[in-house]
Amino acid sequence: MRIVALAGGIGGARFLRGLKAAVPQGTEITVIGNTGDDIHLFGLKVCPDLDTVMYTLGGGINEEQGWGRTGETWSAKEELAAYGVEPSWFGLGDRDLATHLVRTQMLGAGYPLSAVTEALCARWQPGVRLLPMSDDRIETHVAIDDPDSPGARKAVHFQEYWVRLRAGVPAHAVVPVGADEAAPAPGVLEAIGEADVVLFPPSNPVVSIGTILAVPGIREAIADRGAPVVGLSPIVGGAPVRGMADRMLAAVGVETSAAAVATHYGAGLLDGWLVDTVDEAAVPEVEKVGIRCRAVPLMMSDADAAARMAREALALAGEIQ
Amino acid sequence: MRIVALAGGIGGARFLRGLKAAVPQGTEITVIGNTGDDIHLFGLKVCPDLDTVMYTLGGGINEEQGWGRTGETWSAKEELAAYGVEPSWFGLGDRDLATHLVRTQMLGAGYPLSAVTEALCARWQPGVRLLPMSDDRIETHVAIDDPDSPGARKAVHFQEYWVRLRAGVPAHAVVPVGADEAAPAPGVLEAIGEADVVLFPPSNPVVSIGTILAVPGIREAIADRGAPVVGLSPIVGGAPVRGMADRMLAAVGVETSAAAVATHYGAGLLDGWLVDTVDEAAVPEVEKVGIRCRAVPLMMSDADAAARMAREALALAGEIQ
Repeated sequence: MRIVALAGGIGGARFLRGLKAAVPQGTEITVIGNTGDDIHLFGLKVCPDLDTVMYTLGGGINEEQGWGRTGETWSAKEELAAYGVEPSWFGLGDRDLATHLVRTQMLGAGYPLSAVTEALCARWQPGVRLLPMSDDRIETHVAIDDPDSPGARKAVHFQEYWVRLRAGVPAHAVVPVGADEAAPAPGVLEAIGEADVVLFPPSNPVVSIGTILAVPGIREAIADRGAPVVGLSPIVGGAPVRGMADRMLAAVGVETSAAAVATHYGAGLLDGWLVDTVDEAAVPEVEKVGIRCRAVPLMMSDADAAARMAREALALAGEIQ
Repeated sequence: MRIVALAGGIGGARFLRGLKAAVPQGTEITVIGNTGDDIHLFGLKVCPDLDTVMYTLGGGINEEQGWGRTGETWSAKEELAAYGVEPSWFGLGDRDLATHLVRTQMLGAGYPLSAVTEALCARWQPGVRLLPMSDDRIETHVAIDDPDSPGARKAVHFQEYWVRLRAGVPAHAVVPVGADEAAPAPGVLEAIGEADVVLFPPSNPVVSIGTILAVPGIREAIADRGAPVVGLSPIVGGAPVRGMADRMLAAVGVETSAAAVATHYGAGLLDGWLVDTVDEAAVPEVEKVGIRCRAVPLMMSDADAAARMAREALALAGEIQ
């Protein structure tokens, strides 16, 4: 069996760990990772979502926080702050830094991000094929009110909105800058074209899955393939399971509910949708728009819970097929 | 009083700390730092000698080893090794890494090394004006026997010779690649032109002081200025006080002795020379070539010893004047 999963950061990575545990041996999993939250910091190319997937599946993740490395130290960050260079709000650990150094050096030598990601994964052995959604630079920007100019708006990098501002101000728009002219990375369309199942993990529907789908050709390839496309709601009981997805949904005019997210993806793309048991009332609402829906426990309290969720998603895909 | 000192790494930095303690208030010290041992590692510009001076005078040096930062951690280095990227032999600590990140980013933004060094020193407040010898790229290469091709020679970067090979094989030549076309950094010739005294600390006469003097214009400016030029022998009792300077002297055909180093600099450049008390017999030999010479304790066992050495050097300069 060949599975393609689109993934953002923490939620996606934890689901993928469950998926790996749930599938029979011989299953090929290709992960198309979001790169819209990539950022250049201190001259280094940082790919938070790709790294979260790589570290989580490769056994190097800091389990408590869900991002960054286990056994991390923060000496370089302390020193950068002592030099007074900005930004100081991004959590750049010393171990993590090595990943960015290797990546930046390889990119500088002319390797595309997909080749760099493959080289990094040669160490981490994540057990999936991890592809960036694109080798082209795409940066998600968020439009917010400009605090220095009443009535005006300004665009900030997604990381600045998410990490520095902690999504604490309204987002008026979310724009994946550069997506229009970007192409899917080598292997992305091929993997979709051979997929038996396509999964949307409980990642952020706007800035993770949505950004991947914004790369020209990816949405179309998924819809054209005809394989079951099954998603898991990142919204449980009217609130994001983690993160601040409600802010992002509001920016694109989507209600923070499990049913609204399914409708946002749409029946033209999505065949099946899992909502949490607390959202059982959403099932008929989702099925009404032509998406098969089931209510199952969606709290990824541990790796077993994630594996059970993956089994439910695959079972729903089997039913659709 | 205005003092110009040429400096390499550890020996130079420790002497400069003594010099700062020895001079009367209001003395201006300009340090012209060697950049011939600069190296690009993992895409970062590393300036070991400039940093050793900056950290030593700014209170951030690891006292025991004489280079690198106090309270250092090594997480990034461990990770780079885990990725299998080379070189693994260079001691790149996490705190130190921040300096290289700031420097590399500023250089990438178009600032010359002299401006970057000034910015880094704004944090460290070394109490001297630290200038790189040049803003141009100069790299000291060492010719060694090629182990893969008997009878042939190959050039390695000075750091590879010094750190990886621990100067364990004969050096046939030392070449400051790029020096021919380099210009002194802004402020270097001006500082020499206003100097009341020029000092050569007990740094490596070939790859530290020698490389600085190889930048076109610097040697001439020192000779033309007419101010007393006083040096301190890095060779005591026929051996380098620290490091492997004998290897470098052999490569340029100079005997490993306090007198031979003075003669190597020459009376056209050097006016005064301090040798250690164990080398008292060298005094007449040095004076014979027209360089005033004194035998004083030259072991920098602590900061006080370094200050006493600096006072002796300034006393000799006063005598010459």
